[in-house]
Amino acid sequence: MFYNPRRKTMTPHDSDILNALDQSGKGIPTPYYLLDESRLLKNLKKIARLRELSGAKSVLALKCFSTWSVFDLMKEYMDGTTSSSLFEAKLGHEKFGKEVHAYSVAYSEEEVREVATFATKMIFNSVSQLERFHPLVKGKNIGLRINPNISFSGFDLANPARPFSRLGATQQTEIERVLPLINGIMFHCNCENNQRDKLTDIIEHISNNFAPLLEKVEWVSLGGGIYFTQEGFPLEAFAEKLAAFSKRFNVQVYLEPGETSITQSGYLVTSVLDLVHNQMDIAIVDAAVETHMLDLLIYRTDAKIALPKKGSHR
Amino acid sequence: MFYNPRRKTMTPHDSDILNALDQSGKGIPTPYYLLDESRLLKNLKKIARLRELSGAKSVLALKCFSTWSVFDLMKEYMDGTTSSSLFEAKLGHEKFGKEVHAYSVAYSEEEVREVATFATKMIFNSVSQLERFHPLVKGKNIGLRINPNISFSGFDLANPARPFSRLGATQQTEIERVLPLINGIMFHCNCENNQRDKLTDIIEHISNNFAPLLEKVEWVSLGGGIYFTQEGFPLEAFAEKLAAFSKRFNVQVYLEPGETSITQSGYLVTSVLDLVHNQMDIAIVDAAVETHMLDLLIYRTDAKIALPKKGSHR
Repeated sequence: MFYNPRRKTMTPHDSDILNALDQSGKGIPTPYYLLDESRLLKNLKKIARLRELSGAKSVLALKCFSTWSVFDLMKEYMDGTTSSSLFEAKLGHEKFGKEVHAYSVAYSEEEVREVATFATKMIFNSVSQLERFHPLVKGKNIGLRINPNISFSGFDLANPARPFSRLGATQQTEIERVLPLINGIMFHCNCENNQRDKLTDIIEHISNNFAPLLEKVEWVSLGGGIYFTQEGFPLEAFAEKLAAFSKRFNVQVYLEPGETSITQSGYLVTSVLDLVHNQMDIAIVDAAVETHMLDLLIYRTDAKIALPKKGSHR
Repeated sequence: MFYNPRRKTMTPHDSDILNALDQSGKGIPTPYYLLDESRLLKNLKKIARLRELSGAKSVLALKCFSTWSVFDLMKEYMDGTTSSSLFEAKLGHEKFGKEVHAYSVAYSEEEVREVATFATKMIFNSVSQLERFHPLVKGKNIGLRINPNISFSGFDLANPARPFSRLGATQQTEIERVLPLINGIMFHCNCENNQRDKLTDIIEHISNNFAPLLEKVEWVSLGGGIYFTQEGFPLEAFAEKLAAFSKRFNVQVYLEPGETSITQSGYLVTSVLDLVHNQMDIAIVDAAVETHMLDLLIYRTDAKIALPKKGSHR
């Protein structure tokens, strides 16, 4: 978000943000990330409400958001963290506490030994990793990621069901062989999913295709990317679905909200350092995609500019 | 680069690399970057040779390569560094020494004040930045980046002449106005350029279009991206072109080799942590594009795998 001093008119909403910036940003050199606690709290209350209605626990996906300065607030409403690497798991353990779900696309032996000392759940990405390292983590609560072969993500990169995906076990016979070694299953088939009617389809698909497995485990994680904190999302209906799923298979359900937890709560505040003209006016700010907005590079999307509002510039 | 233990046959070249890894990599945990000093030296000697033949000085482009552990070697063959930010410029000053060309797409006032304390040349990206900050840097050797409106880069992102580019001054009348304030000009119109016959075109284009400016400055930087260390590159013919250009306009020519300086000298050494199968065999290594090979993400290219050689896998 940047403020263009050339622009003169403001909407009431603009002036709210500007006032907040004036107060919070005094003396803070740009660029910086501004977190709006009141908006964050709005999301967190919805997360707590979903838990109350459905029994589903929510663990924060650290790969999406790891700004631990607000973890003290977040942990009052969430059940712990989930991670994708040794260092993320350590962060969750040290700064958030509560449940530490430790997952990795591939662990080294040293990482397994270290993570096992503090994780409350260890989730392996493949049957081969599970079989190789199980002797080292006996007695721990163990999970296996399963590729559900279904996804509603618009981003190919984040789609675990895309051809040749390395994310999650795919071979049914192998999975059955290791069932006695695991306590839970992690599915992840959504990313930035706001097609509400598809959520039902996903739960149906999993119920229909993995029933024999679901009946034998204690917990199931449905992953992240479900935008249930969005304005107008039918939270009650979704909660009912989750509760029915949980009851049918007698499992504790987990969700892994990342973006969902913090949506609409964060801004990157920058300053315009120069205005140049090359067929159009161009503002140069003191932030860059690689350094401050890497997700835009990964997904090839544009920054949403909160301020100034879109005009003849682009 | 990774070593796949399943593969049994090796070429002689493979076994050279493997032997080097066995010796250099003993006890070093992966992932790590391996620099081959003997190959680096081969490039550096060509850079020194070009300087000798043409008089053109070469400054290392730190945005491409900033591994200061080999700067002691590199500074014997190169004339300094060029940078794109305050911190890069500081790195060049503290770890490389010699000439420090400090450029930034946009400086803040604080950055200008700090850079001015140690830079040997300060290069501004726009006429507006130059005019705004000139009073702060009077007496320094000042440069202006000019958009040459020509490029042979295959990558749109790295093409300074693409529509709406913010890189370099474009308005002829503005440039003429500030000529008395500057000592030199920076052009940058190549990126990963190995079309040798085009190099002549670029120098011709600049000579024809910017002659009145060139006659009034002391130095001209032709930027980076010219692959003159490549096997078979006509170094002598290129040197002659540069020398003629330098003589015609009575300017010191600079080149800014980045990739050119270190090509073929670096490897990312990783370990295979897991092998999974999803329609094909997939090796999972202990390195990632975002963390270790960001340029692949920026340019959407694939890693060149040095070892193992390409087989039925991909």
